[in-house]
Amino acid sequence: MERHVDQELKELKTDILKMGSFAEEAIYKSIEALKNREKELAENIIDSDMNVDRLELAIDEKCIDLIARYQPMAKDLRFITTGMKINAELERIADIAVDIAQRTIEIVDKPLLKPLVDIPKLAAIAQNMVKMSIDSFVNGDIELAKKVLSQDPEADNLRNLIHKELVEDYMVKDPATTPRAVQLLLIARFLERICDHTTNIAEDVIYMVQAEVVKHHPERLKNDK
Amino acid sequence: MERHVDQELKELKTDILKMGSFAEEAIYKSIEALKNREKELAENIIDSDMNVDRLELAIDEKCIDLIARYQPMAKDLRFITTGMKINAELERIADIAVDIAQRTIEIVDKPLLKPLVDIPKLAAIAQNMVKMSIDSFVNGDIELAKKVLSQDPEADNLRNLIHKELVEDYMVKDPATTPRAVQLLLIARFLERICDHTTNIAEDVIYMVQAEVVKHHPERLKNDK
Repeated sequence: MERHVDQELKELKTDILKMGSFAEEAIYKSIEALKNREKELAENIIDSDMNVDRLELAIDEKCIDLIARYQPMAKDLRFITTGMKINAELERIADIAVDIAQRTIEIVDKPLLKPLVDIPKLAAIAQNMVKMSIDSFVNGDIELAKKVLSQDPEADNLRNLIHKELVEDYMVKDPATTPRAVQLLLIARFLERICDHTTNIAEDVIYMVQAEVVKHHPERLKNDK
Repeated sequence: MERHVDQELKELKTDILKMGSFAEEAIYKSIEALKNREKELAENIIDSDMNVDRLELAIDEKCIDLIARYQPMAKDLRFITTGMKINAELERIADIAVDIAQRTIEIVDKPLLKPLVDIPKLAAIAQNMVKMSIDSFVNGDIELAKKVLSQDPEADNLRNLIHKELVEDYMVKDPATTPRAVQLLLIARFLERICDHTTNIAEDVIYMVQAEVVKHHPERLKNDK
């Protein structure tokens, strides 16, 4: 027989999935705005962040309320507190999409330095890591969470590559490009920070499922990479 | 008569204060390393981050354990869940000090662009905001939390000033300075991000005390600024 609390935990999962979709969509739109020089779309992302903030608060309240009403033990309690943490991570990810939109607005009136390839690639990795990390939470899927962790070095490398190219091939060689190139450099860093947030989520999931301290000890996953 | 749970909540406060001290110290040392070109100190910050990570996990476990054992109601429960959030924020702040230390190591062998004034100033603001935000939590002091929020625009402005000066007066005018200037620009952004984390803490404290949604509605505090 399904307990009442199970129904409410299902609703919590649905809310977190929705929060994840908001975050993914914000990342996608922010890079579309950058690629296509769409100021309105960038502004739209900034305005929509309110909805994410509202949902974050609602989820938080639901979690506290669940704990107060059901006084859940071990497994359910850990699921709820992990949900609260992931909720906060997703809100930060959506905030970073706002940061990207703001940087985009700064350069939207100026010509692109070059066709963007690596930044959209990094954005796609970030979006996919968000999706996988949330799915790993909802399904308690440790293997998927480990996959998120294993993708982070790729994101780091791509970010470093973008940084190096912008500094060496643009800013140093042609200083007139610097104000624009700096914005792109920041956007690449923002995307990589999103990936870092997804690894936080993945670590929380692994910790929740295994109650084992993988957090801060990624080397313990070495054999799985 | 003091309840058992009160004693344990006191210990939680002490732990969070300790976590705050770690974070403050890491910020201070990272800027000392930058100012004085001390590679060893920068490396020391990176190594010490393990201690912060360990304390974060211990605090998290204590919080879950407190909830499971005492099944606290309303006020205590909200205090504990807020403690968990603040704990995560402090761990991120210490991580950002590591980011600063890593940027410092990149430029430690090269001469300083100029005597650093604004970056240490921004670091001092960040450190003070960390201290105030944690004190506001421990003492449930809303006025102090609002003071943290009111300082954020100053940090934003200083960050923008540093950004503008580095791009316009250094990178564009003398591209040979660009690789170093970019690192300083990132460090300024890191410091400002620390300030953002302290405003998250302050908002959590206000929310905890007032159970009023100030979060994401800073305009409600306008009259206090």
